[in-house]
Amino acid sequence: MKIAIAQQNYHIGNFEANFENIRKGIQQAKEQGADIVVFGELAVCGYPPRDFLEFEDFINKSLEVIEKIKQESEGIAVVVGAPTINPVPEGKDLFNSAYFIADGKIIHKAHKALLPTYDIFDEYRYFEPVTTFEVVQYQGKKIALTVCEDIWNIGNENPLYKICPMDELIKQEPDFMINISASPFDYNHAKDRIDVIRANVDRYGLPIFYVNNVGAQTEVIFDGGSIVMNDDGKVVQELPYFEEALATFEVEELINSKGKLEKDIEQAKDKMNLIYEGLLLGIRDYFGKLGFKKAILGLSGGVDSAITLVLAAHALGSENVRAVLMPSQYSSDHSIDDSIKLVENLGCSHDIIPIQNPYEAFLKTLAPQFEGTSFNVTEENIQARSRGVILMALSNKFGYILLNTSNKSEAAVGYGTLYGDMAGGLSVIGDLYKTEVYGLCDYINRNGEVIPKHILTKAPSAELRPNQKDSDSLPDYADLDEVLFQYIEQRKGPKEIIAMGFDKALVDRTLRLVNINEYKRYQTPPMLRVSPKAFGMGRRMPIVGKYLS
Amino acid sequence: MKIAIAQQNYHIGNFEANFENIRKGIQQAKEQGADIVVFGELAVCGYPPRDFLEFEDFINKSLEVIEKIKQESEGIAVVVGAPTINPVPEGKDLFNSAYFIADGKIIHKAHKALLPTYDIFDEYRYFEPVTTFEVVQYQGKKIALTVCEDIWNIGNENPLYKICPMDELIKQEPDFMINISASPFDYNHAKDRIDVIRANVDRYGLPIFYVNNVGAQTEVIFDGGSIVMNDDGKVVQELPYFEEALATFEVEELINSKGKLEKDIEQAKDKMNLIYEGLLLGIRDYFGKLGFKKAILGLSGGVDSAITLVLAAHALGSENVRAVLMPSQYSSDHSIDDSIKLVENLGCSHDIIPIQNPYEAFLKTLAPQFEGTSFNVTEENIQARSRGVILMALSNKFGYILLNTSNKSEAAVGYGTLYGDMAGGLSVIGDLYKTEVYGLCDYINRNGEVIPKHILTKAPSAELRPNQKDSDSLPDYADLDEVLFQYIEQRKGPKEIIAMGFDKALVDRTLRLVNINEYKRYQTPPMLRVSPKAFGMGRRMPIVGKYLS
Repeated sequence: MKIAIAQQNYHIGNFEANFENIRKGIQQAKEQGADIVVFGELAVCGYPPRDFLEFEDFINKSLEVIEKIKQESEGIAVVVGAPTINPVPEGKDLFNSAYFIADGKIIHKAHKALLPTYDIFDEYRYFEPVTTFEVVQYQGKKIALTVCEDIWNIGNENPLYKICPMDELIKQEPDFMINISASPFDYNHAKDRIDVIRANVDRYGLPIFYVNNVGAQTEVIFDGGSIVMNDDGKVVQELPYFEEALATFEVEELINSKGKLEKDIEQAKDKMNLIYEGLLLGIRDYFGKLGFKKAILGLSGGVDSAITLVLAAHALGSENVRAVLMPSQYSSDHSIDDSIKLVENLGCSHDIIPIQNPYEAFLKTLAPQFEGTSFNVTEENIQARSRGVILMALSNKFGYILLNTSNKSEAAVGYGTLYGDMAGGLSVIGDLYKTEVYGLCDYINRNGEVIPKHILTKAPSAELRPNQKDSDSLPDYADLDEVLFQYIEQRKGPKEIIAMGFDKALVDRTLRLVNINEYKRYQTPPMLRVSPKAFGMGRRMPIVGKYLS
Repeated sequence: MKIAIAQQNYHIGNFEANFENIRKGIQQAKEQGADIVVFGELAVCGYPPRDFLEFEDFINKSLEVIEKIKQESEGIAVVVGAPTINPVPEGKDLFNSAYFIADGKIIHKAHKALLPTYDIFDEYRYFEPVTTFEVVQYQGKKIALTVCEDIWNIGNENPLYKICPMDELIKQEPDFMINISASPFDYNHAKDRIDVIRANVDRYGLPIFYVNNVGAQTEVIFDGGSIVMNDDGKVVQELPYFEEALATFEVEELINSKGKLEKDIEQAKDKMNLIYEGLLLGIRDYFGKLGFKKAILGLSGGVDSAITLVLAAHALGSENVRAVLMPSQYSSDHSIDDSIKLVENLGCSHDIIPIQNPYEAFLKTLAPQFEGTSFNVTEENIQARSRGVILMALSNKFGYILLNTSNKSEAAVGYGTLYGDMAGGLSVIGDLYKTEVYGLCDYINRNGEVIPKHILTKAPSAELRPNQKDSDSLPDYADLDEVLFQYIEQRKGPKEIIAMGFDKALVDRTLRLVNINEYKRYQTPPMLRVSPKAFGMGRRMPIVGKYLS
């Protein structure tokens, strides 16, 4: 028996495009002689559809795609993810299902039992968990068919759920496992995924076909990396990261495979390379799925806007990216020089638009109100917001999407101006700490200078007042980022972080800054998620709370 | 046996303040001779604590408050909500519990079984549902103690859950019911609540003490309205809406009460009055809990900023609200006159700050880039954003929170400028359709003119180009709002709405506008929630989706 795994990029709610993609995959699998072709989780409607799932019309459109897939299933079985209506009145209205369709008929629906409801996931918001399990019988084989999280509840000292679907399915003596997933990228995830898949293979002694979606859905990036593992726990193939792919395998070769493969056939998992490729896909899909082509951004001469420009140019093409330099009286000469060198290295167009006129016009306009007050953060913010107005005006006039250039350290402690440098349609590096931004710049420059060296060596500055440095307002980034990582990614409390050796004043101040700036993050653009804990939908905090603040 | 119900306003994560509030409530209940005093759901940490629940430190601080409450429980039993650590490794780490504490000891913990995970609720993100139930035995009585949603799964043709906790508890023959809640306000909720409570009393034949929290937590407003209902299904008392209160009742008087009360002793539930009072509390708590006193807002001469100013002045005091008039060359004279009349009626301070200088400075600055283009929405947005910069500058310089004045119709169809009129710390009327805004204005003027009549009678206009009217760009608000209501609140699809008699072109255009403007709403301030379906955390939509768009 031959099985094709189809790793595809779906567009939420774009039923025509998703069906066309699936149809092509079925065709290709047939050409490769496959008996079964497997697509990803909620492939027909895209994942995550979020509250569109609450619309009957949306569910009906999903089911219409299933009907069309039936027509394509002559001579091949199709495994594909779609929502199903729960026929029982009690409980949630839907299941998250893997359909097994063959010869025009639905042979089986495997509903998801373990519904991730943490971080970016809200599945129990929509779906009823199933509690009974049955293998699929097809052409003399028994298949343990599961959906994503259903295979993630083993090998963990603190399991999130009370049941383990494969422990039930194994009782029916299946021949192999199929899992369809929408399992999002972070820089640790490709390794975690292989570990979990191997834990299943080891526990049940069966090979597995694991199919993951690929493609970015706003901030959430799906990296693909679909896996076929033989019953010896070796990776027979890992499909590429961040692109579509289809491959076909003979099941028999994966069974009784002890010693057949010496080592895993898998891809390198370098953190910075993964982040780089992930961000490119994130940018490309945000623009492509919204129907835009061109990006604009402000180029300050600092490292954050520099790396954002590089990523945008690599994702969209230099010809589609416009950099805007907006110097003020506080800008240093090198900011302009460094920026021009960078745009020349990349081949992007650029404008130089000084902000002096609008900045002074605001000061003049507000002079009666501001009489007797001194220059402070207000005037700094007026500069940042004047830049925001200019960028948005160019965006509106010429159809660019404005890219936000803030990093995770700034977003964490509120070192940024709402409606100024915090503006934009998409935050490209909002999930990278400042120290990681430098790491990614080194990655970009690994084969030669793209980002001018001076941008990487000078002290970070917002250049909103004379001789300003980030270090005037913030702790050293190396310390700051480590404390932030412990608080945000690791969810450690102040006592635990201090016990790690960090200065109490630094810890208290940092945690307080994070918490009192929740109101700013509430209004920032979606941030491409590359870490296990990004700001945005995966981290939900009260604004008016008073905790560590 | 006497039971006190304590309806209190908690502050998320402010353990000291919450404990002090609870301590005072215990004291007051003792003075009233109560045997038991009942507080609300998650009273010790405030509701909803959201992802703070993932921090061990936060849970430990909650449990420390429980220890302190034990010390206060000599001679009285205290029922109070707090998170509990789940001792079993499988499943979520916490329970959402009602503690029953007496004489320094925890007598019982009733964990929540039905975990709302819809709209603004994310409880299964944090809590394990309990599946076994036991009454509390205290002073010869048996008490059915439940948490909020646990009593909401009856009398519904499409129940959300598969179990009904009271159906289990009733088998143990309790004498009465206690339910502790954090059940948020919307303009239908007070009536729904009484209906559900009565359905429980009717089904189980027992009186109930229902204690709800009061107070706003960012966008979510808790209205209180705690209820004591006798076993005849009559409301014996409904505590006030939108304020703290404590009252004590004799249990015996609620049992075998048939015919004792002729009718419910309940408060009026006029929609506009509830919305008005709810929004005042929402404003007051947003400022109070963040430690701010003063609000600023832009006053355009239109109905939205007028009502926002009235609400802010009534909530915070006229002396704490500053109105800023920012005319442009496109502003009509009446906009200034009407606005000045309004601030005079209210006694607020105001500034007149023309935007001509910054607006022209931006046009001059962008002239090289804009050469050969004509005036369009870009120049309109520059005006709106110049106003945004001015308001934020005053906010930054003098410590005001900027109030956003957008309504729900605008937010729905994207009729607003990001970083311009969509700026602000809090959206006051973002959950009111334009037609509801007019209704609320009529309510404000019910005893005499507060909002000048001309503001209510003139045609709505953004005044961003000569003779502009909202009706140039948008359908008539009466039609638009009804279509929006069907799509947003009722979750109807296009076919169903058209079948109601609405024009297909209007429906398709409206639904498309809602869906393509998700990116704008992502960056709007939190909106005080007064309807059953508000934008924000209760409505989660993909940005890059392509559905009805």
